[in-house]
Amino acid sequence: MTDIEKREIYLSCRQFLNGHYPIHISAQLANLSQVAEPSELSDFYGTGEIIESFESEVASLLGKPASVFMPSGTMAQVIAMRVWCDDRNSTKVGFHSTSHLEKHEHHAYRELHKLDAELLGDSKRALTLADFENSSAEFAAALVELPQRELGGVLPSWSDLKGMTEFCRRKNIAVHLDGARLWESAPYYKKSYAEIYENFDSVYVSFYKGLGGVAGAMLCGPTDFIAKAKVWQRRHGGNLIRLYPYILAAREGLKTRLPKMAAYHEKAKQIALALSCIEGIEVLPALPHINMMQIFFRRTPSELEAAFAKIADKEGIALFYKVQPSSGSDGCMAELSVGDATLDLSIQIIEKLLREALDLSK
Amino acid sequence: MTDIEKREIYLSCRQFLNGHYPIHISAQLANLSQVAEPSELSDFYGTGEIIESFESEVASLLGKPASVFMPSGTMAQVIAMRVWCDDRNSTKVGFHSTSHLEKHEHHAYRELHKLDAELLGDSKRALTLADFENSSAEFAAALVELPQRELGGVLPSWSDLKGMTEFCRRKNIAVHLDGARLWESAPYYKKSYAEIYENFDSVYVSFYKGLGGVAGAMLCGPTDFIAKAKVWQRRHGGNLIRLYPYILAAREGLKTRLPKMAAYHEKAKQIALALSCIEGIEVLPALPHINMMQIFFRRTPSELEAAFAKIADKEGIALFYKVQPSSGSDGCMAELSVGDATLDLSIQIIEKLLREALDLSK
Repeated sequence: MTDIEKREIYLSCRQFLNGHYPIHISAQLANLSQVAEPSELSDFYGTGEIIESFESEVASLLGKPASVFMPSGTMAQVIAMRVWCDDRNSTKVGFHSTSHLEKHEHHAYRELHKLDAELLGDSKRALTLADFENSSAEFAAALVELPQRELGGVLPSWSDLKGMTEFCRRKNIAVHLDGARLWESAPYYKKSYAEIYENFDSVYVSFYKGLGGVAGAMLCGPTDFIAKAKVWQRRHGGNLIRLYPYILAAREGLKTRLPKMAAYHEKAKQIALALSCIEGIEVLPALPHINMMQIFFRRTPSELEAAFAKIADKEGIALFYKVQPSSGSDGCMAELSVGDATLDLSIQIIEKLLREALDLSK
Repeated sequence: MTDIEKREIYLSCRQFLNGHYPIHISAQLANLSQVAEPSELSDFYGTGEIIESFESEVASLLGKPASVFMPSGTMAQVIAMRVWCDDRNSTKVGFHSTSHLEKHEHHAYRELHKLDAELLGDSKRALTLADFENSSAEFAAALVELPQRELGGVLPSWSDLKGMTEFCRRKNIAVHLDGARLWESAPYYKKSYAEIYENFDSVYVSFYKGLGGVAGAMLCGPTDFIAKAKVWQRRHGGNLIRLYPYILAAREGLKTRLPKMAAYHEKAKQIALALSCIEGIEVLPALPHINMMQIFFRRTPSELEAAFAKIADKEGIALFYKVQPSSGSDGCMAELSVGDATLDLSIQIIEKLLREALDLSK
C-alpha cells in the first residue's frame, strides 16, 4: 500500500485519534468568514485594527509590553536570536541539540544570520540548570523550549525553570522562550501565562498546534526588541501585505481552544495510563506533561501502518497513517497530540483498537 | 482632518477610482470558501495537491520547468539573487537604483545575504541596454523589473529588453525578472507570457496586485534552482504549514482577472488622455504602458487630500485618500492602478471630479 493510499483511507474516516479534525478548506474558510465582523477590514503590511488589536491582546495575555505577528515560528525565533545577539555585540547563541533551530530549519541561524550555536545538554534528556552550569556561558542569547517536543513534550520542574532563567540573567544572557506548545503547558504548571513568561526576555507562541489555527506565530518582548524584530521580519520577506486569514483563525483558536487545554491534558494522561497496560507498547513520558506523548510500538513501521489502514477501512476510525522508525530498535514511534478529535474517542475504543493493531501486525 | 478620518470617509464610499474594491474580509473569505472544492484539503509545508497543481499551472503558463509558491516577493527575489550568486561563487548583483530590493526591504540582500549591489542606470529613467554596457558587468546576477513601478510602470521596448537579457547571457550573468506587475504587461508587448519570460533565467510574479489576491508570490525557474530556493525559503521561515488561503485567491485571480488585463490597460490609456487636457495635472507616462500611471497635481498634499475627502463625503466616490509630496516641487503625486473599481467609473465622471478637486484645493 502506498503512502497516498494510506492517507486517503485515513482521510475518509469519521473519527481520529490524533489532534483536531482534518481541515476541509472550504468549510474552514466559511467558518472564518463567520468569525470576522461584516465590517472588518484587512490588515495592511502589519498595520490596521485587526492585527494591532490582536497583537495587543496576546502581549497582555503574556505580560509582555509588545508583540508582532509573524507568518512562522522559524522566522520569529531566528530573528529573536539575531536581535539579542546584535544588542550584545555577539554572534553566539545556546540551545538544546534537539531544538527546532538545530534540526528543522537548514541551520538558518548559521547560514542566514552567521550565528554560532553552542549545543547544550544531552539530546536524550531535557535541558536542566546543570547543562547551563556546565556550558561556557559565553553566548549572548539562550533559547529554552517549553515543552521539549522531540522528547515527548516534557517540561522542566518549576524550580529548574527558575534556575535556568536566573542563571542567564546573572550572566547577562538574554533568555528566549520557544513556546511552540506553551499554550498547552499551563495546566502542568498551574500558573498564568504571564507568570510563566515573566522568567523570559522574549517569547514565541504558535497558533496552529493546540489552538488549531491556520498558520502563524507571535513574537513578544520589550518594545525596542519588537521594533528591531520588525525590521528583520521585512528583510525575511515576512511583512506580508495581508495576514488576516491567519489572524482570524488564531483569534478564534485562542477563544475556543485555550479553555480546552486542561481537558486535552487530562485525556492525554488517561490515554497514557490505559496504554501502559498493553504488552508491546511504551509511552513517553509515562505520565504526559502536556497534551502530547510519544507512543512506541514493538512492531515494524510497515506492518503497523498496514494494520492501522485496515482498521481505518473497517471501522472508519483513524489511528495514525504514518509512524517513524524508532532509533536503535526494530520498533516504531507515533507522536500523539490530543485535540478535539481525540476527545471524541473513548479510552475503551482507543485501547481496543491499538490492541487490535498490535495483533494484526504481529 | 486626520489620516484616520480621511481613510474612514474613503472606505465609506460606494465607488473608487483606484484599483479593485476594498476588501471586506468576511465577504472575501466567504467567496474563497465558494471557490474551493468541498473536498479540497489543505497544503502541508509546501506539499499537497492544492499547492503542487497550482505551482505546475503557473510554471507552464510562464514556460519554466519548476516553480515554488512563497508568501512574498521580497522573500522570493532575495532568494533568487542568493541562489544565482552561490552558483557562480560570487556575492555581486546588479539592479536599478529604484529596485524594490534597494528601496523597500531594509537592504535584506546586504544585511541578510551579504550580497553587494551595483546600482545600474539613473534613478530618473528606466533601465536600458546602455546601462548594462556602461556597468562593470562583474555581477553574477542581474534583476530587471518589468514594468518599473517607481517610474510609473514603464516597460522597455522589446528590442531593448532582448538586448539587456542577451548582454547578460553573453557575460554569464543570470538574469532574473522582477515581475511584480508582469501579468499587467502582456497587453503592451502583445506576446504570450512564456515568450516574455523565455528571455530570463528566473522570474517572480505576484498575485495580489492586478490579480487581486490576498498575498503571495511565485518564483519560477530551472528545477535545480527551485530546489535550492526551497531550502532558503525554509531558512527565511517562509515554508509555512498552510498557504491555502493565498493559493485559492491567487488561483481565482488568475482565472477571473488575467483576462481583464487588456481592459485595465485600455482604461488607463483613456484616463491618461482625458487628464492630459486638465490644467494643473500631468500624467506619467503620458500614454501608460500598463494599467498604472503617476498623476502629478500642482497642489499641496494637504489641500488636495482635503478636497478628495470633501468630494468623497458628498458624492460617495473615492478618488485618493493619500497623495505623496512630489520631489523637487510644491506639488504632489498619486499612483493610479486601474482595477475592477476603476472600470466601473466613466471617464466623464473621473475627469469632472478631478477638475473639482483642483478647484477646491486652489
